[in-house]
Amino acid sequence: MRLRKKPGVINKLEEMKELVVPDPQVHKGKWHAVFGNTNTLHLELGTGKGTFITTLAGMNPELNYLGVEKVPDILFIAAQKAIAQGLPNLRFLHMDVENLIYIFEDGEVDRIYLNFSDPWPKKRHSKRRLTHRRFLELYKKVLKKPGEIHLKTDNQGFFEFSLNEFAEMGFRLRNITFDLHNSGFSGNIMTEYEEKFRQLGQPIYRCEALVLPE
Amino acid sequence: MRLRKKPGVINKLEEMKELVVPDPQVHKGKWHAVFGNTNTLHLELGTGKGTFITTLAGMNPELNYLGVEKVPDILFIAAQKAIAQGLPNLRFLHMDVENLIYIFEDGEVDRIYLNFSDPWPKKRHSKRRLTHRRFLELYKKVLKKPGEIHLKTDNQGFFEFSLNEFAEMGFRLRNITFDLHNSGFSGNIMTEYEEKFRQLGQPIYRCEALVLPE
Repeated sequence: MRLRKKPGVINKLEEMKELVVPDPQVHKGKWHAVFGNTNTLHLELGTGKGTFITTLAGMNPELNYLGVEKVPDILFIAAQKAIAQGLPNLRFLHMDVENLIYIFEDGEVDRIYLNFSDPWPKKRHSKRRLTHRRFLELYKKVLKKPGEIHLKTDNQGFFEFSLNEFAEMGFRLRNITFDLHNSGFSGNIMTEYEEKFRQLGQPIYRCEALVLPE
Repeated sequence: MRLRKKPGVINKLEEMKELVVPDPQVHKGKWHAVFGNTNTLHLELGTGKGTFITTLAGMNPELNYLGVEKVPDILFIAAQKAIAQGLPNLRFLHMDVENLIYIFEDGEVDRIYLNFSDPWPKKRHSKRRLTHRRFLELYKKVLKKPGEIHLKTDNQGFFEFSLNEFAEMGFRLRNITFDLHNSGFSGNIMTEYEEKFRQLGQPIYRCEALVLPE
């Protein structure tokens, strides 16, 4: 009997054990051990081709970064970028955001980045949006209190939806801007998407959502 | 010696004692007596020509309404509209919003409407915006807990500023929309400005900000 061969890119990801963490659930509550230090932990959910997180990891060696991405081919591009830069404070997780609470202990994460998440514009798909309250519940659990979510998007409808979901779920909003690149915000790291939108002159929406101690 | 004559419209407002409340500070803590009942009290700050508040007052005879306006000529137009409709549950205050806490006791107001407030777009004028935190402090005092502010504007910059000020001052945001007339919101009462903007196809921004019990 012949076993079905796994697609090549997944094999390649599995070979990158040092960078793409296998069986992430075994590290629940002990992510500091993976990095060999007790530094602050920042996640990017839907890390895409990795420009954002590799840039941040390079700039902030005193912080630990985890990029979460479920699409293997895209994660592979991000991983190659990370390898080229040799970043000891960065790892990737090949997984679905749905499983976050199996991977992180309550309060284990200091900050979550959501950059240009799929807006799922049709109303019947709203549950798939990464700022739907069912996801916000998960983020709230794994985030430290106080902890932060930083969101950027080019999609007005997704932004409006996200502000309402954050507010409804008791997050404290902060630094809301409807035009990031003309807002005076400094230290912005552009993603691949963002660079494109900027060239088209389209505004980028951004906000921070804080989860406070009870 | 000849006394300087008061402008005619102020004289006219002063003659409308039943509608434009003289010396409003004497009613602090006792506004129910002015209306002769203990119904819920809603304010509109910057009531303009009065279409919004007269329409609401006509629709909701079981609620009390106060329209606050500092420009006498505009208030006179609103007052004439109210007289034509004969609304026992509506009064006007010819005053500056700055003085709110001298007119209302803590927790005396159930809801505040801010409709198309002057956006004061220049940064150095930001303190004049009716959602600047120095005003939000006043609203927080006079509002019941829980109490609500309902805001509408056509000005994106003012809306962005207002969301941030509300969030910063601990108001809970709700029903944020970037395009009121395509949002499915029902029961919207249009102001004079709003009707114009709608005809031009410009989006109207709206939100509610709640002050919760401590």
